[in-house]
Formats: sequence, C-alpha cells, structure tokens
Amino acid sequence: MTNQHPARLQDTSGEGLPTLRVAVLGAGTVGTEVLRLITKQGDDLAHRIGGRLEVIGVAVRDLARDRGVHVDPALLTEDASALVRQADLVIELMGGIEPARSLILEAMEHGAAVVTANKALLAQDGATLYEAADRHGVDLSFEAAVAGAIPLVRPVRESLAGDRIDRMMGIVNGTTNYILDAMARTGASFDDALATAQQLGYAEADPTADVEGHDAAAKASILASLAFHSRVRLADVHCEGITSVSDQDIAAAERMGRTIKLLSIVERVPGEGGERISARVYPALIPSTHPLASVSEAFNAVFIEADAAGSLMFYGQGAGGAPTASAVLGDVVTAARQRLRGGVGLRESHYAALELVPLEELRSAFYVSLRVQDRPGVLAEIAGTLSKHGISISTIHQQLLEDDLEPAEGSAAHGAGTGSAHIGITTHRALESAMTAVLDVFSSTSIVLGVDSVLRIEGE
Amino acid sequence: MTNQHPARLQDTSGEGLPTLRVAVLGAGTVGTEVLRLITKQGDDLAHRIGGRLEVIGVAVRDLARDRGVHVDPALLTEDASALVRQADLVIELMGGIEPARSLILEAMEHGAAVVTANKALLAQDGATLYEAADRHGVDLSFEAAVAGAIPLVRPVRESLAGDRIDRMMGIVNGTTNYILDAMARTGASFDDALATAQQLGYAEADPTADVEGHDAAAKASILASLAFHSRVRLADVHCEGITSVSDQDIAAAERMGRTIKLLSIVERVPGEGGERISARVYPALIPSTHPLASVSEAFNAVFIEADAAGSLMFYGQGAGGAPTASAVLGDVVTAARQRLRGGVGLRESHYAALELVPLEELRSAFYVSLRVQDRPGVLAEIAGTLSKHGISISTIHQQLLEDDLEPAEGSAAHGAGTGSAHIGITTHRALESAMTAVLDVFSSTSIVLGVDSVLRIEGE
Repeated sequence: MTNQHPARLQDTSGEGLPTLRVAVLGAGTVGTEVLRLITKQGDDLAHRIGGRLEVIGVAVRDLARDRGVHVDPALLTEDASALVRQADLVIELMGGIEPARSLILEAMEHGAAVVTANKALLAQDGATLYEAADRHGVDLSFEAAVAGAIPLVRPVRESLAGDRIDRMMGIVNGTTNYILDAMARTGASFDDALATAQQLGYAEADPTADVEGHDAAAKASILASLAFHSRVRLADVHCEGITSVSDQDIAAAERMGRTIKLLSIVERVPGEGGERISARVYPALIPSTHPLASVSEAFNAVFIEADAAGSLMFYGQGAGGAPTASAVLGDVVTAARQRLRGGVGLRESHYAALELVPLEELRSAFYVSLRVQDRPGVLAEIAGTLSKHGISISTIHQQLLEDDLEPAEGSAAHGAGTGSAHIGITTHRALESAMTAVLDVFSSTSIVLGVDSVLRIEGE
Repeated sequence: MTNQHPARLQDTSGEGLPTLRVAVLGAGTVGTEVLRLITKQGDDLAHRIGGRLEVIGVAVRDLARDRGVHVDPALLTEDASALVRQADLVIELMGGIEPARSLILEAMEHGAAVVTANKALLAQDGATLYEAADRHGVDLSFEAAVAGAIPLVRPVRESLAGDRIDRMMGIVNGTTNYILDAMARTGASFDDALATAQQLGYAEADPTADVEGHDAAAKASILASLAFHSRVRLADVHCEGITSVSDQDIAAAERMGRTIKLLSIVERVPGEGGERISARVYPALIPSTHPLASVSEAFNAVFIEADAAGSLMFYGQGAGGAPTASAVLGDVVTAARQRLRGGVGLRESHYAALELVPLEELRSAFYVSLRVQDRPGVLAEIAGTLSKHGISISTIHQQLLEDDLEPAEGSAAHGAGTGSAHIGITTHRALESAMTAVLDVFSSTSIVLGVDSVLRIEGE
C-alpha cells in the first residue's frame, strides 16, 4: 500500500511539502480519469494545495480486471474498509448506496475528508452523511454529483450564500437531453433516438434511471436541499420521465415555437400558511427562444434566479469521465488545502426546514393533446369542462386525423360514423388538481377518444 | 460605534451565537445594498455562518450626505483607519487605489478578513494584497471584482483547481456590451448609443474606463492571474476599447453573419521556448451563432475551456448594486464561516510564473476595411501585399462608394478621376506583426485612401 509511483513523490519545489494520503474507491471511468489527472498534474496540484497527494490505494471489486495504464496495479485492493481508515482524504466513486455509505461514514469517523460524486446516495440519505461530517469535523464535498463539470454546488452554497435563491430550473441529465434533442433534430421516435444514444454511449444498456427521470430527480433533491437550507430527499421530488414523449409531441411543440426539455425545477412557493418549496422533474415545453432550449446534445445547463443576483446561467458538460473528474479534483484540492491549513469549508444546513408543496397544489400552464369525435359541439363541451374546473384556455388547435377518415377494414372506429379529430390545447396557469379532475372527466366521456399527451409549459 | 440596530442583535435561534464585527468602507450603491441585505437577511445569514454579523461602522468621506433608510446614521464615521482596526471582517467598497489599499493592508495587519470589489486595485497591485493576506493568515475575497453577480472567481480558483484552464473568453463589461448591442439593434452611431446608455444609467458621465476597455482589462488581469497561477498586472494586458467601432463596422459584421463584442481573452500560448500566456481586450467579430453573440444589453458572460472539464459558460448580471452586493455577501458568509471555524480559504498563488506573450507574436484572423482607388489592379496589389507578409485572404468584398462617385464641390477627391471603392477583407490567422507591417505599407501607398477599421475575428 506504499506509494509505488515515483512521480508522485518527486518534489520539484524542494520545499519538503507535507503529504496527504488519498484513497480512491472505485476505478471505473471517473476513477481512472481522476488517477490520471493526479499523476499528470502532480506538481501543479502540489503547488495549489501546498502539499502532495499520495494515492495510497484504489479499492476495486475485482483485482483481476485490467484498469489501463493510469492505475498502478500495486495500488489496487479489495479491502476498501482497511484503506479508508488509513487515508486523510477519501474519493468515493463506486456509486450506489452500499457499501459506499458505510465506507464514507467509516472514513469520516477516522477523520478523513470525503469527496464523492454519488448523487443517488446523497439524494437518498444525504442527511446522515452531512451530520457525520459535522460531528467529526471533516469536509464532505460533492460538486461532481450534480451537473458534472459545471460548478454548481459551490456557487450555490458559497457564492450565493449571502443571497436568497428563489428558483432553479435546469437540464441536469445529459442522456435525456441527447434523446430529446435527437428527436427534435431528426424526427426520430423515442425508441429510435434511445437506440442511437445507446450506440453512441450516451445512454446505458439499462436506461431506466435516466429516461424515467430518477437521475434528474436525485440532482433536484441535492440542489433543493442546498438552495433552500432544508432536507429534500429523492422521495420528495415529483418525477416524470420522457418515455411517453412522442414524436408527435415534439412536432407539435415545434409548431408552437417551443421545445421539449426534461427540466429539474426547485423553487420557493409563497403561500398564506408561510413559504414552502417545490422540487419536481418533468418534460416540459419551453419557448424555443429560451436559453435552455438551445442546450443541445448531452450538455447540461442550469438557470438560477436569486433575489439580489438576478438571473444566472451555468452551462457545460454534465457527464463523462473527464468532466466529472475535473469536478472531483476541484473538491480534492479545496478539501486538501482546508485539511493542511486547518478548518473546514462551508457546511450544509437545514435550519429553514421548509415544507414541500404537494404537486396538486401547484399551478402550471399545460399542453393537452386529445383525440376526439369529429362532430359539432365537441369543442364547446371540452372548453366547458375546462372552464368548469377553473382552467382558462390559451390556444386551441384542431386537426382532422386523416387516417381516421377512412377507418381500416375490420377496425371498429370509435364514434362510428363521425370520424375523429385531434385537438391540441394550451392553457393558462391552473391548479394541477384541476387538470387531474379534467382528465378524469375526459376519460369517462365518450366524446374524448383518448388523451395522447399532457405536458407542462415552463419558462414563459 | 456600538450596534444601534436591535434587529441585528436579536437571536431568534436562542443559541447564543458568536458575533463578528463587520466594518464597511464606502456607502455608495453597492455599500448601501450590502447593508440592506445584512439587515434584511440577518437571521438567515446567522444560520449560514453560525454567527451573527454586527456592523460596527460604515466609513464615508462625507458624514453629512444622506444615505437613505438602510444606512444607520449612527454607524457612519470618517475615521476609516480606526474602524478597520476594530473589525473581524472588512468590506471594502470605496474603489480606487488609495486610501483603499492602505486600509485593506491595515485591516489585514490587525487580523481582519477582507472582502473587496475593487478591481482597479487588484489589477494594479494585487500581489501586495495577496502577500499581505498570506503573511497575516487572513482571507482576501473578491468575487464581486469580476463580472458582478456571476460566480467566477470561486469556480476558477476552487472548482477548477484540479483542472487546467486553457482559455477564458468573455464579455465582462456591461456598459460596452450595452452600447454595442444598441448599435447593432438600432443602427445607432457609437456617440448616440453612448448618450442613450448614459441617460439610462448604463454608462457613467465620464465613460472612459469602460469604453476604452480599462475596466475589462482590469478584470482580464485578475482572471489571468487566477487561471494561470501567475502575476498578471493591468499593464500586462493589451487593451483596445470600442470608441473606434463604427456603425459601418456593425453593419459589415451583420452582413458577414457576425457580431461585434468587446472581448476579454486570457489564454495559454504554447511555444518552443515553453508555455506563455496572453491577456488582451479588444472588440472582435464573433459568429452570430456563438453563445456570446446573444449576450444582450448589460449582461456579462464568460466561456472557459479547461483540459478535463471541456467548455463551460457562466452568464448573468455583471454590474449594478444588488448583483454586486450578492457577490460581496457570498464572500462575507464564506469568510465569516472560515473565521469562526478556524482556517482560511484557498489562496492565490503565482508559482507558475508564466510569461506574457507580446501581442505582435500572437496570431489572429482579421477583418480589414479599406477605402481604395477604384481602378484596375488595385485588388491585385492589395492581395499581393498581404501575401508578401504571409497573410492569407479568406473573403474579400468590394463596394463602390456612391458618395465618392460625384465628389462634392470644392473637395479634392483622392485618386482624382478614378472614384473610390470600399474593400472589406477577412483573413485567415496571421501574425499580428505581419498585419502591422501590412498596415504600414497601406498607409504609404497611394492606392489605399484610408484604413477605416482593423478588427480581429474570434470564436470560429
């Protein structure tokens, strides 16, 4: 477990710098890149830290697997627990809940600072980690857990620490943005765009965590916790993915001068009973002129609205080995300096303890796409239903469905003898619960043959 | 000098939090806003800091002047020196070199952390301040000195501390961006756009520091120092302002699908004798599709290219009382926490000590606008001159100048009998010194009647 890599021990400054023992947990894409950068930039990092990083071990599950040239085989160990107890600084890149959580807690108990990119763990059980860091007086840093290389955690918890963040709205999942962007550019279906994303390495073989919005929701919970000084867990985040977004939705959005993006939104919600907060993830239509609309491929971007600062936007690569490693190393340098100079950095706090607003109490503007009977009075009845529930229509677009004009042989067309039509409606802001009630009515009335889509409209 | 403001002493947490004595130097737009936010957000800040901020005094030049409701008259003092000696944390918002520098040094000597927005002082004599902070073991923070509310200093010196920044290119002066944006939108001349900016408060009565690029150059020197761990002073930054940008240039840029922006560029320049750096400010043409091209009005935005992180962009309000105060307070909270928990934050370093490349050794693409004699052979001669100096033409655009077709009575038209034409040339990347030599030739040849504009092309 001693340092086998002479380059890391060499001290070109001749200053006899102190050394920090670093343990790396996990040697996947990000771990390998972190090790590569520590080796390549050893002298630079030493100057910036005022001390040298000595990698004392890399914990992996399988010693036999080839890790490439940047991972010294002599550093590999399967005994992660023994490793973290010897470290001054632990870089956790294994992902998942266990054993990552136990190892992080063990590391902090032994006085090590921890840098992690583990958004799933932070979203599910961040409170345990924050409290342990506080109790043991060590730094817990996780810039890489949200939006990859984009500095976001540090700006939110430090740069804006004297301000009041009202709202954050962003694209924080590259896979889904790649898919939606490809659908918009090429007219591809969701399935085809997903297949392409998988071929190109933008989506995993099991894309569930991305396309169902879970990854974006985990990040939303971390951002909401930081921004509002409250505990927001993954389970508190309303989450809808993009699997039901159709190429028809994308085309309809374009006709309306809008673009569909998977948004993570966290915001303060004023109310009579005091201020509450909301954290939610869903695909939404935004104006094509909105800066988030031009975020293409797998890029990420986040808008922040703060009381004094006004509007801020951060843009960059949200995933990938090198960008994530950049964020990890920024945390490593900062934590290492803190460690050598004494003291710890800013802490999470949850003093505000703001409550979450249930989705049904929020107000949104909607786009609703319906298949209806094509006969007189249908529009009036639909408009009446919306109106009865306090929902005001902004625009309405009707189109005869050509493939329903001449029903295929043997298929019993709904509303026989009348044909069917498509109606696209956009509404002004209305209560979510009102829209739910309207959709219930639509599902039980014979004039509505089907509800194809319900999407929210944001950023206007 | 005791706290006259009961709201700040009130401890709703009941935790008996420690108190930090804060001195504010200057009560202008930013100072007033800082004081307002400290009062308004006192409880929030106390939670975030783990201690209370007690403003023990506000140093001003003129006690008699009315400061509005947010500045407690009992806190005002003309004895700034006595004030800083009693403070734990000094917020310097006076601007200018002296007495700001002496007061900051005095504060640090007495153990106070310092937060400043003074870009002019940092650009001219940052080294003295950084060294004093290091010597006395106190924090020196200056997020508000570059790009107002946009977190930029902290991301560069902390988030990207484990990465290698190759280049930063940005719009960091709101006044000049407002003027250029207005010229492009309305076709106004520079003088008219400046007058409008002054009426609306976007430009000062004496706009020199902005329109001549000095403000942008000061920010470039700060960013270059941070990004490249080298000492870059204001005098090291090549600086050209926007006063010579004409409405014809703006129109020509638009015809070429480009936009003119005042850019601050700092970058690493590889070379045989080792790596050097460049820091420069000039108006340049960028593609209208470039993200910086859509930065309108007085907004700021900065692009960063880093080895591992890839491309990042930061966007927001670069000036104004509230946005600047937001950045100041972020620094205040962070410094206050450091102070209470022990330790100091990241330090500036200049270990890399990279040399500056003289402008003439750089390579740029150019747009050159000439008035020439309208006769056969002129184009060939101009192209030959460029070619002889190793400059390769990308596009060339010739236009007969109608007002020269019929010379006004009494005016002796150049190139009598031939008329004159306008030529707009864009070049591939060429040595700055070669372009200087070409312009020398043009100034001495009779076929060139005048050089109207020389602008660089960036971002392609």
